[in-house]
Amino acid sequence: MFVSVTSAVRRGLWIGLIAVEVVAFSCAAAFAQAGPLPSWNDGPVKTSIVDFVARVSGGADFVPPAERIAVFDNDGTLWCEQPVYFQVAFAFDRIKAMAAQHPEWKTTQPFKAVLDKDMKALAASGEKGLLQILATTHAGMATDEFSKAVGEWTATARHPRFNRPYTELVYQPMLELLAYLRANGFKTFIVSGGGVEFMRPWTEKTYGIPPEQVVGSSGVVKFEINAAGQPELLKLAKVEFVDDGPGKPAGINRFIGRRPIVAFGNSDGDLQMLQWTAAGPGARFLGIVHHTDAQREYAYDRQSKIGKLDKAWDEAVQRGWTVVDMAKDWKTVFAFERGSTGASQ
Amino acid sequence: MFVSVTSAVRRGLWIGLIAVEVVAFSCAAAFAQAGPLPSWNDGPVKTSIVDFVARVSGGADFVPPAERIAVFDNDGTLWCEQPVYFQVAFAFDRIKAMAAQHPEWKTTQPFKAVLDKDMKALAASGEKGLLQILATTHAGMATDEFSKAVGEWTATARHPRFNRPYTELVYQPMLELLAYLRANGFKTFIVSGGGVEFMRPWTEKTYGIPPEQVVGSSGVVKFEINAAGQPELLKLAKVEFVDDGPGKPAGINRFIGRRPIVAFGNSDGDLQMLQWTAAGPGARFLGIVHHTDAQREYAYDRQSKIGKLDKAWDEAVQRGWTVVDMAKDWKTVFAFERGSTGASQ
Repeated sequence: MFVSVTSAVRRGLWIGLIAVEVVAFSCAAAFAQAGPLPSWNDGPVKTSIVDFVARVSGGADFVPPAERIAVFDNDGTLWCEQPVYFQVAFAFDRIKAMAAQHPEWKTTQPFKAVLDKDMKALAASGEKGLLQILATTHAGMATDEFSKAVGEWTATARHPRFNRPYTELVYQPMLELLAYLRANGFKTFIVSGGGVEFMRPWTEKTYGIPPEQVVGSSGVVKFEINAAGQPELLKLAKVEFVDDGPGKPAGINRFIGRRPIVAFGNSDGDLQMLQWTAAGPGARFLGIVHHTDAQREYAYDRQSKIGKLDKAWDEAVQRGWTVVDMAKDWKTVFAFERGSTGASQ
Repeated sequence: MFVSVTSAVRRGLWIGLIAVEVVAFSCAAAFAQAGPLPSWNDGPVKTSIVDFVARVSGGADFVPPAERIAVFDNDGTLWCEQPVYFQVAFAFDRIKAMAAQHPEWKTTQPFKAVLDKDMKALAASGEKGLLQILATTHAGMATDEFSKAVGEWTATARHPRFNRPYTELVYQPMLELLAYLRANGFKTFIVSGGGVEFMRPWTEKTYGIPPEQVVGSSGVVKFEINAAGQPELLKLAKVEFVDDGPGKPAGINRFIGRRPIVAFGNSDGDLQMLQWTAAGPGARFLGIVHHTDAQREYAYDRQSKIGKLDKAWDEAVQRGWTVVDMAKDWKTVFAFERGSTGASQ
C-alpha cells in the first residue's frame, strides 16, 4: 500500500518540480530586468548581502564553490512561526483528524483540550501533555505514512489569520535570497529545530531545498520487515536529536561536516549556529530576521514566547551582524500580497 | 590556533581539489576514448550497470535527476578493509603517536598491548579495551583537532602489506563507477559503519564525495566556548549513532531523507540498506562487491571476521542482485598496479 502511495507522491512531486522550474525560469527573467532580490528595499541590508556575495564568489574574499555553504533557520526565518509553530498546528490538526478513531479522546486530556480548543486546559497539561500529543501524531507509524500525512496537511490546512496554506506563509525576500545564493554557487541548507521529517515533504517544492539539505530534530526510527514482508522504518516515540540552540552547530557538524560561511536566523535558538559560523576563517555573513511588521506579519522580539530574540539580538548589535528589519527592508513579505494566484513557490 | 590550522588545511584542500579536477578532466578524456568503466572487464556485471544507468537516465525507467541517489558502503566496498578496518589502524597509530605524553601506557592495558603489538593481550582486553582505545583516540578533543589528526595520518601512515597510504587502497573500478554515476546525474553518498568524522577529511579528494554526502557512525559533540573565547565542538566519549546493519536505512532516512535507487555493499552490515533500497518503487540497482582476489587484494566471505558476507550473499543470490567478482570483473583493483605515481585520486 505504501509503495503505490509513495509512487503517486513521487509523481506528484515531479510534476510540482517541473512547475517550480517554470516559475523559477520566469523569476530568473524578472531578475534580469529588476536586478537580484527585487522584494528587498534598497539600503544597507540589501547592499551588505550583494556585496558579500560578490566578494566571496569572485572578489577579494574568494571562497571555493564547494565551501559556499549557507544555513537557514526555518521557523521565523524562512516562514512564519506565529501564532504557534506550524508543526504544532499540524499536530493539533492531526489529533482532530485522528479523533474519529479515538472516541476516548472526548474525555481524556490532553486530547480533549485540543478537540475543544481549550487552551487553558492544554496549558494545564504542561510539557507532558504536549509531548503526548507529539508522540501520538509523530510516532507509531512508518516514515512513509507520516510523510503522507504531512503532505495532506500542507495541501489542506489553512493559517488562522491569513487563511492560506501554511506553505504560502514563506517570506518572498528569503526565497529570492536562497535563489540568489544558489545562482552564485552556494549550497543552501535548512538547519531548524523543527522535525526533519515534518519539513522534508515540502521543502524542495517550496524553497528549492532537497531533503538531503534539511537538518532538523529527529526521533528514533527502527528498521523492520512489516507484516506484508516489506522493509519499513517505524517512527518511535523517542527523541533522538534536538537541533536547537547548541544543537544547531552539532547538527551542522553531523549532517554537513563543513562550517557554513552564511547563517541566517531570527531567535536565541539560532545564537550558537551564528557564533559557530562567525568563528570560521575568512569572510562570513551573519543575518537575523527581526519581526517588526505587525501589519503584514507579526511584531515580536525580546519577550516573545515563540521566537524570542534577546541574547542573539545583543550579540548581533555588538558584533555588527546584519539585522533585517522586516517592515523597513522588505518590499513584500508574502508573495500573495502582490495578488499572486496563491501557488506556493 | 585551530583557526590558522584550519585555514591552511582549507587552502591545501583547495589546491588538492584543483589537482583532482585536472586529473578528473584527463580521466574524462580517457573515458571518451575507452568508454565508461575502463577498469571493469566486459561481461554481465558491467553490462548490468551500464544498462541500468541508461534506463533510469533517459530510457524506459526514467528517474528525475533529484531522485538519482546512489549509496555506497565504504569499508570493503570503496576501499580495502583488511587486515583490520583502517579506522582501527588509525586508532592504533594514534595511540603510538600519543604515547610520549602518556608514559603510564607502557604498563597499562589495553595501551601496552597496542604499543607492544601484542594482539593476544589486546584480544584479552575485549570490547571494553577496544572502546577505551577508541574513546582515547576519538574523543576529548575539538572536532577541528581530530580532523587534523586524521589528515596527518592519511598523509603519513602506510598499509602493512601494500606499503602505500591507506587512501591509495581505494578500488579503481569503484572510483570509475562513482564518476560514471555522477556524469549521469546521480548524487553519490557514502553510508558507512565507519566514523563520519574519520571519513570526511579525505572523501572529497579521494572519491569526489563532499563531507555533506558522507553518512556514518558518530559520537556526541558538545558546543562550547573554549578558554580562548572561541566556539568549538568537543568530541565526547559517548556513542550517538551506529550506522551499521539496521542503522544504515535509519541513517539514510535521517541524513538523505530520500530512498536511494542504487546501493552497493559487501557484507552483512549492508543487508538492510540493500533491502531498503530494493523495496522502493521503480528501477533499482543492488550491488555487492565479493572479495575473491587473494592475489591482488584479499579473498573472504561467509566466515570472515571482518566483512562477513553470509546472509547478504544468500539474499543477493535469491533476489538476483548483482554480485561483483573482484578477480573476474575487475581489470584493475588499485590504480598503483598500473604504475601510477601513487597520487590518490
